[in-house]
Amino acid sequence: MADKKYQMDKKIGSLKYTDLLPHSQDPAVSEALLRELTNVLLDFVKETNDRNCKVLNFYHPEDLKNLLDLEIPDEGRSLQSLIDDCVKTLKYQVRTGHPHFFNQLSCGLDLVSMAGEWLTATANTNMFTYEIAPVFILMESVVLAKMRRIIGWECGDSILAPGGSISNLYAFLAARHHMFPDYKDKGQASIGAQLVMFTSDQCHYSVKSCAAVCGLGTENCVEVPSDEKGRMITSELERLVLERKSKGQIPFFVNCTSGTTVLGAFDSINEIADICQKYKLWLHIDAAWGGGLLLSKKYRHPRLTGIERADSVTWNPHKLMGTLFQCSTIHFKIDGLLLSCNQMAADYLFMQDKLYDVGYDTGDKVIQCGRHNDIFKLWLQFRAKGMSGFELHMDHLMAMAEYLVERLEAEKDKFYLIMKPELVNVSFWYVPKRLRGVPHNKQRIHELAKICPILKARMMEAGTLMVGYQPDDKRPNFFRSIFSSAAVNKADVDFMLKEMDRLGKDL
Amino acid sequence: MADKKYQMDKKIGSLKYTDLLPHSQDPAVSEALLRELTNVLLDFVKETNDRNCKVLNFYHPEDLKNLLDLEIPDEGRSLQSLIDDCVKTLKYQVRTGHPHFFNQLSCGLDLVSMAGEWLTATANTNMFTYEIAPVFILMESVVLAKMRRIIGWECGDSILAPGGSISNLYAFLAARHHMFPDYKDKGQASIGAQLVMFTSDQCHYSVKSCAAVCGLGTENCVEVPSDEKGRMITSELERLVLERKSKGQIPFFVNCTSGTTVLGAFDSINEIADICQKYKLWLHIDAAWGGGLLLSKKYRHPRLTGIERADSVTWNPHKLMGTLFQCSTIHFKIDGLLLSCNQMAADYLFMQDKLYDVGYDTGDKVIQCGRHNDIFKLWLQFRAKGMSGFELHMDHLMAMAEYLVERLEAEKDKFYLIMKPELVNVSFWYVPKRLRGVPHNKQRIHELAKICPILKARMMEAGTLMVGYQPDDKRPNFFRSIFSSAAVNKADVDFMLKEMDRLGKDL
Repeated sequence: MADKKYQMDKKIGSLKYTDLLPHSQDPAVSEALLRELTNVLLDFVKETNDRNCKVLNFYHPEDLKNLLDLEIPDEGRSLQSLIDDCVKTLKYQVRTGHPHFFNQLSCGLDLVSMAGEWLTATANTNMFTYEIAPVFILMESVVLAKMRRIIGWECGDSILAPGGSISNLYAFLAARHHMFPDYKDKGQASIGAQLVMFTSDQCHYSVKSCAAVCGLGTENCVEVPSDEKGRMITSELERLVLERKSKGQIPFFVNCTSGTTVLGAFDSINEIADICQKYKLWLHIDAAWGGGLLLSKKYRHPRLTGIERADSVTWNPHKLMGTLFQCSTIHFKIDGLLLSCNQMAADYLFMQDKLYDVGYDTGDKVIQCGRHNDIFKLWLQFRAKGMSGFELHMDHLMAMAEYLVERLEAEKDKFYLIMKPELVNVSFWYVPKRLRGVPHNKQRIHELAKICPILKARMMEAGTLMVGYQPDDKRPNFFRSIFSSAAVNKADVDFMLKEMDRLGKDL
Repeated sequence: MADKKYQMDKKIGSLKYTDLLPHSQDPAVSEALLRELTNVLLDFVKETNDRNCKVLNFYHPEDLKNLLDLEIPDEGRSLQSLIDDCVKTLKYQVRTGHPHFFNQLSCGLDLVSMAGEWLTATANTNMFTYEIAPVFILMESVVLAKMRRIIGWECGDSILAPGGSISNLYAFLAARHHMFPDYKDKGQASIGAQLVMFTSDQCHYSVKSCAAVCGLGTENCVEVPSDEKGRMITSELERLVLERKSKGQIPFFVNCTSGTTVLGAFDSINEIADICQKYKLWLHIDAAWGGGLLLSKKYRHPRLTGIERADSVTWNPHKLMGTLFQCSTIHFKIDGLLLSCNQMAADYLFMQDKLYDVGYDTGDKVIQCGRHNDIFKLWLQFRAKGMSGFELHMDHLMAMAEYLVERLEAEKDKFYLIMKPELVNVSFWYVPKRLRGVPHNKQRIHELAKICPILKARMMEAGTLMVGYQPDDKRPNFFRSIFSSAAVNKADVDFMLKEMDRLGKDL
């Protein structure tokens, strides 16, 4: 981004915030600032979508500090200086919507969702009451009801939360409240014994975090072993439930992951639901990552078969659906539970003698007070894409993952595919020249793992590509490429492999 | 907003999302959509600042549903239809930045912060690692360190959270972890006795919610009585601490509110800090609302005197500082605590063998995983206003509150001032004709309280004004006018009183 491009009219550029609305009554200066900003942002959008532009300009933190002026001044700066700040910020920002960014579960830059977020910012409101967010409250109820119907429920209740971790926390709280209604007022003392929850060892770490936050202790979040594909071994779940019961503890909550973070595995919902039914346990499905596949006839089954048997479901549109970060939803089969669980009855906010039907106020259902408007950007996407557009999107992402698998298998000398995934997470090692044709044993895996951080560093320094790596409990470091951006096509997959080879073959 | 105004070129308007980047490679269509949206948003900004425009167009939920088309279609709609959606959404949205909106703690429309939020949306990233948010991570560290210095600490640690309630939850968790390090793994079972927390009966309800969420139970969040100004009675705090101790329970956490939600009262920090010191209790200060006054030499003392003695402080820039919703900060005197408290060591995200100094990654400090970028809009405001601009802003808000008090006292027949506030919350009753000159006793108060919801309904139906009302535990319904918008001037205060009288005199 050539910094000199964004020059406001000299006189206007030298003005300050005191010349903007509402400090000054003349809207022309405000308009000039926002139009210049729009130019800056439009160019960033174009560069994000331009394969000739880099994904990032990497600098180490200490170097970046020297390149930037982040100081908080005593006296405010000029409007031109604010525009310069914006330009510089974007210059060093990673383009998470670039077609060569395969690094994160949330990526892509969906322009309709972005337009929605610009409007959301401008409308600057808070989702706690119909009084100050009438349209957005109605949108929330329409979209969430639709999502519940997609899950397979005609009734129920839902809310948008600031991220999947907090959504999972809502599920935990509702389960505890439903099964032990005295807990809210009296705490752990109201139950004689230790509460215990269960989840696979591949689950998102926020599930374990619930146990820490809510006072169970992480040792009472039992990690059920998973199979080689990353799916919970359900016979082990039953064994562990019985083991804890025999100690006089109270199992009450099982988290089933639909799309694990690293391998993209789907736990078997029906098998887990049978165990939950047998032992009267709350079944929560963390489909934060995999939930998007509910929108695809081709991929929904068998991965999410049985999801309607859950008591609660987390589903993050900001992942597979490409909604701008953040947009996470949590759904409950039982209506009224969110309110009775979280209600603190703040009578300064949720008065019952208001002008309108206060059943529309959502604020007393949540553990936050204020709640950001995360619905408009999602609703606008639904309007733009329709159900069919989202289905095409899911099928495209899965097709890209399948294409990468195919390409990795075709280039067996240079790449080692770890497994065929059930989702858009493709796990593999890159094989540099010196390790090609060598037997794939513990020693070679050790060497391939050592290469990951070095090759990743080279990608970032070159700025041409970003693919994540991590270890898991079965293997050391390996690459995990994610497809959740609509920008990626087959040529980009080809580029990924070629570029990894260019940067890594000598390692 | 005249809907016909926003007509895109017919051919472009009839296109669909598939003609936008990244689906189509031609940036012209995307640019046309975003420029048309900018026109819509600029007009909304102008109308928000236009005293001749209404604050809102009120409709009851069932009527509004009929006016809007919120349906989720099977096939996506055209780009022109998306623009129409945006126009219609804003038409029925409450203008929370309007100079006649006195309804909420978070209001105003700070255009610099709004510009920041447009950029934030466009950069669409996640704050968990330096890897994908390098500039924003550095900004966060600069701004939070500055805020800690303003509090009076040279060291410490801080984080931005999705709202003050979650900030308070972070404080609670850190306190429990610091004082009972085994709690994280072993839960309540690691402590023999019941933990107890203390807060005034005027505190924000999120404090009590912590007790429910974290497993103490709300009965173990002890409400300390407050005086007639809404300030915690500190002798009562000591008495209640001793009472709980004598039962064998463990008091560990005191919440001191700096700026209560309804009356704007400041608990005496030094008196509470003395008690915390004496009994070794964690001192948390919830300055979500009043924290902004730290920026004013004139108003900081005595309200926030002693704040540096706290162990943790919540301070929401999205309240008095006018930062767009949401922007909440939580600060700790002890560095390292956030990490050791919340760390779940997800090794797929927070690998220690990365290219850069991973000390900059923040993700393992929080109970969320992904975290929205709430820093840029605040940082840009600091650049625009400087420290001096924020000080002027605080002094202006307080001056407006003082002016309203003065006016209410001058119009004693029409209004009854409940108390002179310490903050920008001005509490009063409106007196209709029939109750003027009548002795101000229980009977009159009962009548004045009954009027509040009716007069508020008339304001909303007229669309000309919004002022909140609520009961508290000492009195029935009364009005509470809030000054936290830079848009409000003396003439707006005059308008408020005149308009309330116009709408209410016959009640």
